[in-house]
Amino acid sequence: MKLVNSISCLVRAILLSALFALGPHAQAQTDPLPSWNDGQAKQAIINFVKETTDQASPKFVPPAERIATFDQDGTLWVEQPVYSQVMFILDRVPAVVKAKPELAKVEPFKTVISGNWEAMAKFTEADLEQLGVATLTGMSVETFAAEVKAWLEIAKDPRWKKPYTELTYLPMQEMLSFLRANGYKTYIVTGGGQDFVRVYSEATYGIPPEQIVGTAGATTFGYDKAGKPVLTKAPKMMLNDNNAGKPEGIYLMIGRRPHASVGNSTGDREMLEYTRAGDGARLSMIVLHDDAKREYAYGPAQGLPASKVGTFTQALYDEAVKQGWAVISMKNDWKKVFAFE
Amino acid sequence: MKLVNSISCLVRAILLSALFALGPHAQAQTDPLPSWNDGQAKQAIINFVKETTDQASPKFVPPAERIATFDQDGTLWVEQPVYSQVMFILDRVPAVVKAKPELAKVEPFKTVISGNWEAMAKFTEADLEQLGVATLTGMSVETFAAEVKAWLEIAKDPRWKKPYTELTYLPMQEMLSFLRANGYKTYIVTGGGQDFVRVYSEATYGIPPEQIVGTAGATTFGYDKAGKPVLTKAPKMMLNDNNAGKPEGIYLMIGRRPHASVGNSTGDREMLEYTRAGDGARLSMIVLHDDAKREYAYGPAQGLPASKVGTFTQALYDEAVKQGWAVISMKNDWKKVFAFE
Repeated sequence: MKLVNSISCLVRAILLSALFALGPHAQAQTDPLPSWNDGQAKQAIINFVKETTDQASPKFVPPAERIATFDQDGTLWVEQPVYSQVMFILDRVPAVVKAKPELAKVEPFKTVISGNWEAMAKFTEADLEQLGVATLTGMSVETFAAEVKAWLEIAKDPRWKKPYTELTYLPMQEMLSFLRANGYKTYIVTGGGQDFVRVYSEATYGIPPEQIVGTAGATTFGYDKAGKPVLTKAPKMMLNDNNAGKPEGIYLMIGRRPHASVGNSTGDREMLEYTRAGDGARLSMIVLHDDAKREYAYGPAQGLPASKVGTFTQALYDEAVKQGWAVISMKNDWKKVFAFE
Repeated sequence: MKLVNSISCLVRAILLSALFALGPHAQAQTDPLPSWNDGQAKQAIINFVKETTDQASPKFVPPAERIATFDQDGTLWVEQPVYSQVMFILDRVPAVVKAKPELAKVEPFKTVISGNWEAMAKFTEADLEQLGVATLTGMSVETFAAEVKAWLEIAKDPRWKKPYTELTYLPMQEMLSFLRANGYKTYIVTGGGQDFVRVYSEATYGIPPEQIVGTAGATTFGYDKAGKPVLTKAPKMMLNDNNAGKPEGIYLMIGRRPHASVGNSTGDREMLEYTRAGDGARLSMIVLHDDAKREYAYGPAQGLPASKVGTFTQALYDEAVKQGWAVISMKNDWKKVFAFE
């Protein structure tokens, strides 16, 4: 009996040791952001998490209020040379034209079919909107999701020849995980299509569909021939989730001011301002694309004109410095850019 | 040393016993819905949770996909004789008229100021919309939230003389808790104002602001005189979260089809249909107000005409039966209606 007790005690001791080993103490000793070089940006993230999660801190934030919002294109993954969703739209044009052959002679469809990239680069907002309506609406929401999923499985980025979902920035993935491990709900707040991003957000970033705020079109509820309820994507904009639309979208979809926001372009300016204007600890960060070798270099720090994609102007850079937003230099702050490096 | 070991072992054993006592086995033996009488409605909830959370079940739903949506007025709390938010609007009219005295001679403000309830009961949708714009827009979102909070602290329901937030149905609170304990994210999907409900949803139902889908007005991002970013409530409807607007709002805000939905009026019909039309186990339930003594009786089962508030028509009842929605009879299915009983 004594032996049995001793063994039983040993088993318990081992179990408990295992529990302690998994506890918060052990976690705190490993670097939560291993792909970040030591520097102001990394320190800003670590300090922010420390002061908002330490109950003894005057800037403690209750777990329920811990909201962090991230732009996607250029902040969480590559946006050059063309937003992936624009590629999706262009890739769908042939099928649309096949279904309606009269479109082949009409702009902007004619140019897309011609494959003339120089001409496509000159498309106006109105052109893209026309293509968007033709390729992103009129189908059920399930059909749309299935088509996005199928496209993502075959589409490849032109430079790395990899699926778009592999072109996420490893340091940002670490930041998302670090915040979540500390009780933050992470959201994507994107100018991209909300239901486009929702298709892959959970697998790609660990962010569920209900935590994606994006540019959103209306849907129309109705019934199919068999009387089954159907939601059909309608050609009507509900939320243009860019610029002022970002804080407005955050209020609509989340209803709380974020404690942390990260962006990379003028389209994120109002979100970063709104986040920073809250009480207590508020972290606003902006990603600077200054690494032509490992990714791309564009924007003011390069002395380059603002690109059409991801416009990071000199004025935005000046505001970031003035307002105390942390600037993330891809070149200096990131040890690794991609997981596949 | 042996004694120390023995004591240490005892402490460990006690700790482990405590852990086991808190485990799933012990929980399963208590009734998760104690305010429900045994019957089809209670059984439908228990069966649904069992078959969607048991990994061996063919209808198992992965935790990330467990979404349940609840109408509020008449489903989670009392909606008679007048929606609480309408009371809020009416209570705010004197302050609005004080700020703009010329309104005192203009309808519908004149009638509200007169206190003539019979005349107010005849207000059209357009009248209410005009009052809504005057009382719910033009201020910052923070000012609005503070005003709702202050009103909720003093406003009382006319029958029970209690704060509205105490007039929630205890059985529905139990259902919310039971679903959450089984990994469901619970949402309110209400025709009421989204940002009105968000003020009290966390304290009242344990549902955070970001899980409230409701009728939503636009906001406008701008700057105050000091240059601080401000979101101002604008007189523009973004989402009318009634009828077809409910599944449309669910797609916009959640992006997943719910596995369970509960409603109580024709405004919930499309949401209940949409939920039920999904694959696998889908629970659609409808609350029947047939308890004049403990709450109110209105709708078809009473042989009463559909009330203006919470219209539950005979056609809806027939559809519920035909589609296999579970009907919750307040009189028969609920042991207790309110926690304060």
